Amino acid sequence: MVVATQSLDELCINAIRFLAIDAVEKAKSGHPGLPMGAAPMAYVLWDRIMRFNPKNPYWFNRDRFVLSAGHGCMLQYALLHLTGFNSVSLEEIKNFRQWGSKTPGHPENFETPGVEVTTGPLGQGICNAVGLAMAEAHLAAKFNKPEHTLVDHYSYVILGDGCNMEGVSGEACSLAGHLGLGKLIALYDDNHISIDGSTDISFTEDVGKRFEAYGWHVQHVENGNTDLDGIQKAIEAAKVVTDKPSLIKVTTTIGYGSPNKADTAGVHGAALGDAEIKATRENLGWSHEPFDIPDDVLSHFRQAVDRGATAESEWDAVLASYRSQYPAEAAEFERMLKGELPADWDKALPRYTPADKGLATRKHSEITINALAGAIPEMIGGSADLTHSNLTEIKGSGNFQKGDYNNRNLRFGVREHGMGAICNGIALHNSGLIPYCATFLVFADYMRAAIRLSALAEAGVIYVMTHDSIGLGEDGPTHQPVETIASLRAIPNLTVIRPADGNEVSGAYKVAIASRKYPTLIAFTRQALPNLAGSSIDAVAKGAYIMSDSDGTPDMIMIATGSEVHLCEQAAEQLRSEGKKVRVVSMPSWELFEAQTPEYKESVLPKAITKRLAVEAAADFGWHRYIGFEGQSISINRFGASAPGNTCLEQFGFTVENVLAKAKDLMS
Amino acid sequence: MVVATQSLDELCINAIRFLAIDAVEKAKSGHPGLPMGAAPMAYVLWDRIMRFNPKNPYWFNRDRFVLSAGHGCMLQYALLHLTGFNSVSLEEIKNFRQWGSKTPGHPENFETPGVEVTTGPLGQGICNAVGLAMAEAHLAAKFNKPEHTLVDHYSYVILGDGCNMEGVSGEACSLAGHLGLGKLIALYDDNHISIDGSTDISFTEDVGKRFEAYGWHVQHVENGNTDLDGIQKAIEAAKVVTDKPSLIKVTTTIGYGSPNKADTAGVHGAALGDAEIKATRENLGWSHEPFDIPDDVLSHFRQAVDRGATAESEWDAVLASYRSQYPAEAAEFERMLKGELPADWDKALPRYTPADKGLATRKHSEITINALAGAIPEMIGGSADLTHSNLTEIKGSGNFQKGDYNNRNLRFGVREHGMGAICNGIALHNSGLIPYCATFLVFADYMRAAIRLSALAEAGVIYVMTHDSIGLGEDGPTHQPVETIASLRAIPNLTVIRPADGNEVSGAYKVAIASRKYPTLIAFTRQALPNLAGSSIDAVAKGAYIMSDSDGTPDMIMIATGSEVHLCEQAAEQLRSEGKKVRVVSMPSWELFEAQTPEYKESVLPKAITKRLAVEAAADFGWHRYIGFEGQSISINRFGASAPGNTCLEQFGFTVENVLAKAKDLMS
Repeated sequence: MVVATQSLDELCINAIRFLAIDAVEKAKSGHPGLPMGAAPMAYVLWDRIMRFNPKNPYWFNRDRFVLSAGHGCMLQYALLHLTGFNSVSLEEIKNFRQWGSKTPGHPENFETPGVEVTTGPLGQGICNAVGLAMAEAHLAAKFNKPEHTLVDHYSYVILGDGCNMEGVSGEACSLAGHLGLGKLIALYDDNHISIDGSTDISFTEDVGKRFEAYGWHVQHVENGNTDLDGIQKAIEAAKVVTDKPSLIKVTTTIGYGSPNKADTAGVHGAALGDAEIKATRENLGWSHEPFDIPDDVLSHFRQAVDRGATAESEWDAVLASYRSQYPAEAAEFERMLKGELPADWDKALPRYTPADKGLATRKHSEITINALAGAIPEMIGGSADLTHSNLTEIKGSGNFQKGDYNNRNLRFGVREHGMGAICNGIALHNSGLIPYCATFLVFADYMRAAIRLSALAEAGVIYVMTHDSIGLGEDGPTHQPVETIASLRAIPNLTVIRPADGNEVSGAYKVAIASRKYPTLIAFTRQALPNLAGSSIDAVAKGAYIMSDSDGTPDMIMIATGSEVHLCEQAAEQLRSEGKKVRVVSMPSWELFEAQTPEYKESVLPKAITKRLAVEAAADFGWHRYIGFEGQSISINRFGASAPGNTCLEQFGFTVENVLAKAKDLMS
Repeated sequence: MVVATQSLDELCINAIRFLAIDAVEKAKSGHPGLPMGAAPMAYVLWDRIMRFNPKNPYWFNRDRFVLSAGHGCMLQYALLHLTGFNSVSLEEIKNFRQWGSKTPGHPENFETPGVEVTTGPLGQGICNAVGLAMAEAHLAAKFNKPEHTLVDHYSYVILGDGCNMEGVSGEACSLAGHLGLGKLIALYDDNHISIDGSTDISFTEDVGKRFEAYGWHVQHVENGNTDLDGIQKAIEAAKVVTDKPSLIKVTTTIGYGSPNKADTAGVHGAALGDAEIKATRENLGWSHEPFDIPDDVLSHFRQAVDRGATAESEWDAVLASYRSQYPAEAAEFERMLKGELPADWDKALPRYTPADKGLATRKHSEITINALAGAIPEMIGGSADLTHSNLTEIKGSGNFQKGDYNNRNLRFGVREHGMGAICNGIALHNSGLIPYCATFLVFADYMRAAIRLSALAEAGVIYVMTHDSIGLGEDGPTHQPVETIASLRAIPNLTVIRPADGNEVSGAYKVAIASRKYPTLIAFTRQALPNLAGSSIDAVAKGAYIMSDSDGTPDMIMIATGSEVHLCEQAAEQLRSEGKKVRVVSMPSWELFEAQTPEYKESVLPKAITKRLAVEAAADFGWHRYIGFEGQSISINRFGASAPGNTCLEQFGFTVENVLAKAKDLMS
């Protein structure tokens, strides 16, 4: 290839390529291949199509862009820098993948303004984009008026072969097709290369046909390397199709421009090296030094700043007019955008006394969701096809469906992983929506990669996980969580709560609703539990508290969570009647307890008292933090069994008698 | 519906239905809807098509049957009972879902002979079946001779809407299409109902078209309720297509025969109730008491016993002839079927001294896999598109591909979850194959549901997980495991090993290869580590051992795993030179250590020594089991960061200096 006179478009695209090439080379680490191949489609998107304001990355009505193939993040950093985002200076690009930079190895929304979601784990980004599009559709249906289009943006994605191989993307894209999300437009960088080499070795399906089967509008741009107008026309055609999401398969060459490495896996995830960079410079006619951007290129890209300012100010006018005509709606909209909860929302939380009938905590959850849904209109969520087991339905609302996007009950189908990733997208729409989603606790395993990203990416998703122990009974070990709670407690930034009764369920939601930056996972029982005399809504926020106590220094402390607290209460009562001094600590959340002051922690679990019995219908993994070498636990360090729930609980030792026996043993 | 004279076929199908109806009713728990609707296709399969021997459920050359929609397990129990398997007596059916029965709430291969794999978590079974079909294809390519077809069976699946919504099934089915697994035949029970109601609310894609896009042969039986010949013809047509897996969409009515509940979600997962059962009996013309099977029905079904005995004895003749003509191959084949490893296989394990160059443990893993692959021809495996990062390739073998099924390198594509579930299928083929699979450790999250099933279903899969800490560097927190190791240690029956150097890698594989009933997960570094003077291949099996020690009672114990052991060794050496008595314990596996005698445990970690420092580049979650209240740890209780690996390790305190400082602090 010999390049004679290059158009400004070509120069701009090469500027993206060489920022990626040179940043990866400087870091000696990264993925140049995707930015080099996908630069044309990304350029068309950012230069000709997308509405955004570089000087206000958080402008509400911006088009969202998700690089689902997150390893190609230098593509996104190059675009953010070139179009004028303050977050990505040239210095930051030079610091690509270095400690403390704004240009980490994969896009991180919590590090880099302008990045919408955190990608890298493949398949997640496209699902996040489905969530972004669902959020847009919901808010548009809720707030827009015939003469006021307040909410109106597209969600664009670039995804690669890897994303398309991951099952999670299939889950969310099937749902997106079902929902007819017309403003979701995905560009599939069809470069035929994954890390192991040609996709011929493992991925020969017809992706376009699969998306058609999902109900998507599918187009193909055969020359994604140079046919800019073809790309533009396809995107414009996709916008015209308003009742289906669009996939545009854009066939490209990975590492385009590299004479010896293009179209090979060698250019996917490693620096090109000096010699090949030199050859690529010659081949693409790019004579500029590393990180040197020609003025005409930069000034062309930077037109995005004026365009963005204009777009935002036009929208501000729409908002102002809307505000004058619909002050109540505007107030709600603006409250949501500010991330403020409605005043006194927590007064809606149900309160209980022991006189109230004991219910399964999943039933308390249903009552609480419905009590809060009235007070907090931004709650939106549902279940992965277990609505009437998880009890998550908002009874005053219909289903979120094509043509009924104003509704708040999401019907995810049996797609746990996609559900979690979609909810991350809804949360990271940053428009105040509070997404919750539900399945059986054991199936947290199916969606764990999405839960981890909620925690990392600061997405305040609420995970409603029912059937939280062997107490679920007959479904057996495939459905009975044992190690699941421990495995979730281990995730940083995730608050896990296992409430013991109605008040603690209210307390759990009080924490979860208020936690807009970090996810909360609440584990609920299938089976009924009594309402406890000592339980407290507000104490849940402390993670652990004294549920009942004897006068004076306790002989022992029982520590329990969820469905085992009432067993300890009964056993303690018996022991007290025998003259023992017993404290019962309800510990709905380890993470919340760890966040308390040392003084508070000492007041609940005094170091001097080492006779401690932990009771939880789960693995003992992690409990030694609270019971030390001298304590004991009643736990399950094996898989469960299929039998009625009460039988399982008895067989595994979750009875008052066994708690009593173990407690006496400990004190003997 | 009024039933006049019923054919024997109809009676047989109704017998299946009413065993399911009555067992669920007796248990007051279970899923009658699927067995009622899918009974016709299952009857055709088991009565007219499949080859199996009820009196020897483990006959090697049997057709495999997988009920991917495992909640419908009464269908399978009814078939097992009716066709004469000893494992499922009528008493066991009456004990459906009760403690200790052979008829648990979902099919469990480890409880019930005749059940091939453990299903219930949706989507897993179809992926297991892909693994079964891959195992068959591999063994057929390896052992069959032109005139001796020793390995020759089909893998049949019944899957439902739920399985088809799960992403994991899409991953494995895309791969199955790519591989052209002609002997995999899946019947899709297309009943339009999932737990939340009609699939219209969330699942309206064109499933058949999607499978065509995967490269499957797709047929549709429009009346799956009564068109037995149509079902049979479709299966026969599927068998004729030898270069593609087959999907037969069989449209049925869930709860067929129930006048008021058929075709509703109400019949999916709850007992019908007395009145509706009475109405269903009338409707289907079934006058028999619960659990009463008419003689003509039973004797028809029980023809399977003779058929099976004949089929097995015919195959025995093939084997005998093969044995005489190919004694070496036959000996290998029969050794594999017995589950015996080759003699002296472990002599192939590499051994190291500190003089050997330090390598990344993933590199040691590559050396070990290749050393063992020669000695153990039944090793088969690969990576989810990270072959040259995970370093899992067997260099003497090509890729397992259509037409090259004799090869041992599996190319899974970016499909971690499907990979795990496929490997479960390969392991549960029970033909001696030892499957291993690989990805980055952090992506264990993507496949956790499959790993859990390896552990539950007694599938001795080996998980090769590289890039095991923040030490992987620039890819950043999305790729850096922090909580992952703890979350895996929590899974019952799974052995997690994090080796510290070359000898420990050999020791890890020694454990993993020998563990044919339970899975082993080994975590390897990206970065190089020195070979340690005190390391031992054999000691790995003990889980923890003294790597180095001072004379006399130690002042403190350092406990470390993997890449942190050498830091402790260096720090201990320094401390000893300062007159301190320090023991370093390498603890590659908690599970293996917990399985040791109390005496051994006390010899390594004497209770009296409470000054303990745990060092692991991961969350401290769970470590209090070994460090108690008085110990300390150097850990990471937050997500990682994008920077060069050494920078990350330094920033998070994984340096000799910091170990020294913490140790001194502990002893002060």
